[in-house]
Amino acid sequence: MHTTIPVSLQHDPVKLILLDQTRLPEEELFLHLDSRDSIYEAIKKLRVRGAPAIGIAAAYGMYVCLAQQSYPSLTAMKLDFAELKQYFASSRPTAVNLFWALQRMQIRFDTVLSNPQARQQDVLLALLDESTAIFEEDQAMSKAIGEHGLTLFDKTKTWGVMTHCNAGGLATSGYGTALAPLYLGHERGYHFSVYSNETRPLLQGSRLTAYELNKGGLDVTILCDNMASLVMKEGKIDAVIVGADRIAANGDAANKIGTSGVAILAKYYNIPFYVAAPSSTFDLKTAHGSDIVIEKRDGEEVVNGFGKRTGPKDVKVYNPAFDVTDASLITAIITEKGRIEHPTTEKVRKHLEMGSV
Amino acid sequence: MHTTIPVSLQHDPVKLILLDQTRLPEEELFLHLDSRDSIYEAIKKLRVRGAPAIGIAAAYGMYVCLAQQSYPSLTAMKLDFAELKQYFASSRPTAVNLFWALQRMQIRFDTVLSNPQARQQDVLLALLDESTAIFEEDQAMSKAIGEHGLTLFDKTKTWGVMTHCNAGGLATSGYGTALAPLYLGHERGYHFSVYSNETRPLLQGSRLTAYELNKGGLDVTILCDNMASLVMKEGKIDAVIVGADRIAANGDAANKIGTSGVAILAKYYNIPFYVAAPSSTFDLKTAHGSDIVIEKRDGEEVVNGFGKRTGPKDVKVYNPAFDVTDASLITAIITEKGRIEHPTTEKVRKHLEMGSV
Repeated sequence: MHTTIPVSLQHDPVKLILLDQTRLPEEELFLHLDSRDSIYEAIKKLRVRGAPAIGIAAAYGMYVCLAQQSYPSLTAMKLDFAELKQYFASSRPTAVNLFWALQRMQIRFDTVLSNPQARQQDVLLALLDESTAIFEEDQAMSKAIGEHGLTLFDKTKTWGVMTHCNAGGLATSGYGTALAPLYLGHERGYHFSVYSNETRPLLQGSRLTAYELNKGGLDVTILCDNMASLVMKEGKIDAVIVGADRIAANGDAANKIGTSGVAILAKYYNIPFYVAAPSSTFDLKTAHGSDIVIEKRDGEEVVNGFGKRTGPKDVKVYNPAFDVTDASLITAIITEKGRIEHPTTEKVRKHLEMGSV
Repeated sequence: MHTTIPVSLQHDPVKLILLDQTRLPEEELFLHLDSRDSIYEAIKKLRVRGAPAIGIAAAYGMYVCLAQQSYPSLTAMKLDFAELKQYFASSRPTAVNLFWALQRMQIRFDTVLSNPQARQQDVLLALLDESTAIFEEDQAMSKAIGEHGLTLFDKTKTWGVMTHCNAGGLATSGYGTALAPLYLGHERGYHFSVYSNETRPLLQGSRLTAYELNKGGLDVTILCDNMASLVMKEGKIDAVIVGADRIAANGDAANKIGTSGVAILAKYYNIPFYVAAPSSTFDLKTAHGSDIVIEKRDGEEVVNGFGKRTGPKDVKVYNPAFDVTDASLITAIITEKGRIEHPTTEKVRKHLEMGSV
C-alpha cells in the first residue's frame, strides 16, 4: 500500500481518516472525521482533492455518518440517507466523481432495502462493502495504469521524467495515474529522476507531487514551470507523464493549466509526452478539445497566493485553471486497458470498446 | 519623461533619488540617498536593478558623494574618488554595466585633472556632466529601440503583446528595451493589450512590468508563466517582445529563465518573437549560446520565496536564473541601430558595424 494514501477508515468508533492536503507540505495532519459537517467541510475546502479521492471520501463518509445513528425505522434511515447524500453532493458541485460515488451508494442502499427482511445492520454492511469496492476498484485502476505505463521504461538506466500538477497517490486511493508507473517501477527496481513542475498558481507540483514522491522514496526535483524548456534542452528529460481531467473523443486532453505548454516543449525537443488517466476520463460527447469550456478562476490566486501581494492591486489578472493539449502532441494515452498510441477518434473508440487487458 | 523613472537627482542638498524596486508593487517608496553607504546598499540589495539603471545610479552616486565634501587638495579628492569607485564596484561584482559607468567617470575625472588650472568645482561639474551624459545616452538608446520596434505595429487595431520578466523603464533610465516600442506607441496613439508573464521565481513580470505599464497608462494583464500557451492559442497574442542579458555572435540570446519556452510556444503558434536590447548586449567573443554559462541560484527562492514555504524542506530544487533562446526561434533582434531579421553570425556582424540609424 502506498504510504501517502489520503483516505482510510478507522473502526471503533468508526471514523474517516484523511491527510489534510491544504496543510502540505508544511504539516502532515491526519484528520479523524466522524461528523457530517466535518466531512462536508473537508471536501469543500479541498482538504481531500483529486476526482477519485473525493468520490471515495464521500462514499466512506456516508457510511461513517449513518453507522453512528440508531434509527427508529428503516424509513427514518432512508430519509436521513437522502438528506446526507444531497448535503455531500453540494460540497463540490462540479466534481463528477463525487456524484458518481454517491449514486453507487444510493443504488446499493436501494438494493438492500428492496429485501423486506433487511435490518439496519444489513444496510450498513452493504454501504461499507460498496465504499470499499469503490476504493479497491480505484486502486486496481491505478495499478493497471502503472503496469501499462511501466512497459515504456526499463532497468538499463535512470529515466528522467517530468510531470505537471498532481496526478499521484494524493488524488486517488493508490498509486495515482501519471505517477503510477513511477511508484510501480520504483518497487521493482527501476530508476527514475523525476522533475516536478511547481504548477502555478496553486503549486500542486511542489506542495503535493514533490511531497508524495519524496515520501515514497523516489528521487524528485522541484522546478518552476518556466524552467521546463531549459531542463529539457539540458537532456535531463526522457519522457513527460501527466494526468487528465477530461479527454475528448479525438484524444484532445484537458488538464491543469500549463500542460499544453509542456507538451509543445516536449515536441520541440523530441521527448515523448504521455497522458495517464482512467478510461472513465473520456467524454465521448465532446468531439474535440475546443468544445471544452475552460474554468476561469479568481485572479487573487495568482497575485495574492503566498500570503503576500505579488502584483499591483489595480492590474487585471488572467487565471484559467485548465488548458487542452491537442491529440497531435500526445505520444500515447495510458489507461487501465492499455495504451492508445498517437490518439485519433477511431483509436479512442476502439480502445474504449475493449475489455481491460 | 517616463513616470516610473528609477533614478533622478535633487539639488540643494544634492541627493540621488531612487524608486525602491524591492518594495514594489506594494509600496512606491522613493529613496533620497546622500551617503556612500546608502547608495552602496541600494545597488547591492537590488533596490535599483537593471544593467543600465545600475550604471546610472553608480555614476550619479559618485557625483553626489564627492559634491558633499570639501577636500584640502585635489590629491585628497583623487584618493577619495579611487576609494569610492572601488567601494561601489564591489556592490554587484557581476554587473558589467556598473564597471563600465564607473570607468567613464574615472576617465572624465582624469581628463579634468590633467589641466593644471583645474579646481574642485571644475571636477564636480565634469562628473555631473558625465553622469548626465550616461543617463541621456541610455534614454536615447531606449528611444531608438522604441522607434525601430514600433514599425512592427500600426494603428489599425489593438495589438496583443506578450512580454517576460522586466525589460522596461525600471531597468533603464527611460523607456526600457522590450517595453520601449509599447511606451512610444502608446504616446502616439497606438493600442496595445499587454500580457505580462509573472516570471517565477522572483516575479519581475507581476511585481515590476505590470506595475510600470499600468502606471504608464497601458492596458496590461498578469498571467502565470504556464498560461502563455493557452493565451497564445486563444489568439490574444500578435507578438512577443523580451529583453536580453547577453547575445552571442550568432544571435542566440540569454535572458531571464523561461524566455526560451515562450519562444518555442510562439514558434508553435506562428507568433513573431522579438528580442530588444542595446547593441552593447552582443558578446562577440561568445560564438554560440551554448557557450554561455547559466547562473544557478538558491532553491529557497523557489520554495520559500514569499514568506511561506511552498515545497517540502528535504526535496531538491533546480533554480537556473537564465536560459538561452536559439537564434532560429527569434524573428528579429531590435537594437538602437535597427533590426536584425532572422539573426545569423553574418547578419549580426554587419549590423554591429553600422552606425546608428
